[in-house]
Amino acid sequence: MLAVKPENAFHEGLEGIVAAESSICLIDGKNSTLAYRGYDIHELAERSNFEETAYLLLAGKLPGIPELEDLRSKIAAERDLPEGVVRLLGTFPKDAHPMAVLRSAISALAFFDTESEDKSPAANFRKALRLIAKVPTIVAYFERMRRGLDLVAPKKDTSWPGAKNFIYMLRGKEASSVENTMLDKYFILLAEHDLNASTFAARIVASTTSDIYSAASAAVGTLKGDLHGSANTRTMESLLAIGDINRVDVFVNDTLLNKRKIMGFGHRVYKGPDPRAKDLKAMAKALADSNPGQAKWFAISEKLEQAVWEKKKLNCNVDFYSASVLYILGIPVDLFTMLFAISRMAGWTAHVLEQYAHNRLIRPVSLYTGSAGRAYTPIQDRT
Amino acid sequence: MLAVKPENAFHEGLEGIVAAESSICLIDGKNSTLAYRGYDIHELAERSNFEETAYLLLAGKLPGIPELEDLRSKIAAERDLPEGVVRLLGTFPKDAHPMAVLRSAISALAFFDTESEDKSPAANFRKALRLIAKVPTIVAYFERMRRGLDLVAPKKDTSWPGAKNFIYMLRGKEASSVENTMLDKYFILLAEHDLNASTFAARIVASTTSDIYSAASAAVGTLKGDLHGSANTRTMESLLAIGDINRVDVFVNDTLLNKRKIMGFGHRVYKGPDPRAKDLKAMAKALADSNPGQAKWFAISEKLEQAVWEKKKLNCNVDFYSASVLYILGIPVDLFTMLFAISRMAGWTAHVLEQYAHNRLIRPVSLYTGSAGRAYTPIQDRT
Repeated sequence: MLAVKPENAFHEGLEGIVAAESSICLIDGKNSTLAYRGYDIHELAERSNFEETAYLLLAGKLPGIPELEDLRSKIAAERDLPEGVVRLLGTFPKDAHPMAVLRSAISALAFFDTESEDKSPAANFRKALRLIAKVPTIVAYFERMRRGLDLVAPKKDTSWPGAKNFIYMLRGKEASSVENTMLDKYFILLAEHDLNASTFAARIVASTTSDIYSAASAAVGTLKGDLHGSANTRTMESLLAIGDINRVDVFVNDTLLNKRKIMGFGHRVYKGPDPRAKDLKAMAKALADSNPGQAKWFAISEKLEQAVWEKKKLNCNVDFYSASVLYILGIPVDLFTMLFAISRMAGWTAHVLEQYAHNRLIRPVSLYTGSAGRAYTPIQDRT
Repeated sequence: MLAVKPENAFHEGLEGIVAAESSICLIDGKNSTLAYRGYDIHELAERSNFEETAYLLLAGKLPGIPELEDLRSKIAAERDLPEGVVRLLGTFPKDAHPMAVLRSAISALAFFDTESEDKSPAANFRKALRLIAKVPTIVAYFERMRRGLDLVAPKKDTSWPGAKNFIYMLRGKEASSVENTMLDKYFILLAEHDLNASTFAARIVASTTSDIYSAASAAVGTLKGDLHGSANTRTMESLLAIGDINRVDVFVNDTLLNKRKIMGFGHRVYKGPDPRAKDLKAMAKALADSNPGQAKWFAISEKLEQAVWEKKKLNCNVDFYSASVLYILGIPVDLFTMLFAISRMAGWTAHVLEQYAHNRLIRPVSLYTGSAGRAYTPIQDRT
């Protein structure tokens, strides 16, 4: 073992280690608050919309009327996918992992963007909007292709915000006003969360001055993990396994008895409640109220939240009520993490632009714990 | 600005911060030594071979005869690409960025691997070998496709080590023995380098329990950056721009006068010489000696190394003599970083397996430098 200077102590998982200066997002884990660019998340969820929030994250301030209109029309104009990417999507196996599809499709988008290697801030800003615009189309096209349905082209005018346009592309018909509103709020709430693993991965990619498509596809591959974005799918699988409000207690007892983790609870950064959970719970309730046939998923969730709190004093996290929100919205369970990615693309790209603007290569060191000074022996002499 | 605890001071680029415990690679930046699993890099370059080194990195010890034979036959058997990936490669634009091609192709490999979501250590080890085996084929196929040449299928028997098989696939004919040996040494020397940016990115992806293809494609996207793997291409571009040994001094003076960076010099971790540079310099010389028509690239490099040392006291790094080695081997300049990736796949996958084996989510925090407590105003009231 080598001698280690005190500042070089190993903090497992980099817990608490400051890996960047950033003006994008402030999480106060002790007081359970979250703010994007200084605006409280509850206020944004209540009063803003996803496009305005994306502008806020990328540009650092809320837009005026002309800026927002400009952003909306740029995003709407960029919703189409290059034909080459549509063709690629068609060659992917129908049973492919949705996040592997999104990772591959984003990687391939670079081929068809003549600006992909343009490192100017203006080009990178345009590419950020392009990614925000095109990812929902990738998701909707993939879903319709694997179900053997005709593709529904995106709406290209600004009267179709991202959330409304996305459900329309997915279903082939317009959703209700409450559905559109709740999906828009979901996109606001999930858009950004400081140096979570996927955002941190995106910044590392960017720190080598690699391109934004490399960063975005790395972020998608990172979000894919069960300890990150796929937790929303895993949570819904638990709710489906429970299936009935009367089975909640048995499920909790069994899971704890077998020392298994209950999905959707606990968070590295929040010691108390996850502030987003409160909004998501209200949204799940609103969706349940508007859709009585699916209301039981909210009821099961609420009872599960209570039971886990009583037995383990654990708070539910952002993934927990995300599950019933997305399920009642009719999103297929294995696409939940793609929905997370649609939203988080705003935060990822904001962090990539910030990294480019104040760049230094991110390159830590390891603490070596292996053997040293081994002498090479010819293969026939090895035992 | 928030109060920051002393251990939470910001170390820009995580310089010197211990981000993992690892038993794979020991870099001693002060004494300019590098060892894989305790074996000095010079000894490995001199006496080992790429397959044996890959085994060492992945398994933690040098193989015996049966283990090495087993590894060689598994790699040889896995060299073919799934037809779906060959078809995909054919749809990529001929002028696509080579590293964007590799990133996308690795991402798509997951679709055709029935074990892609199998998280068992045994399956992940098999996937690591699969990646090491298939990446050279992706590179060779891409190059021949864009030149409009017939594909040359990989050799499937163990008498064709990776380096020899790769040049054969690329050229359509066998290379000389010195060429095969030097490429094999190149693959040994570049295979692993602790928590460089691409390896660190791969470990972050793995830390969410995402799959090894997500980790490998993120690593490729990270290596793509000019501050990382693409430095070998950038270095060769400089050598080509110089073009003649008599223009070295003018080039150095001009570059320094314009305060531009001379590619291939300096390193975050090595304060003195990069130990790999010594081996690579000898290899470039051996290749130059065996190929007088291309010998000037070694001569230019040597003079440039000397001039930069005299003017700036900067040591050349791994990328510097990599450039002339790969160029004299006849590798197209824009594929240099792909060659780096062929080699580094051994180190990337070793780190991913180590991360899985002792996992904790890698999730640091940022130091918030933005505004706080901003009040949301309706859009029409904003100025």
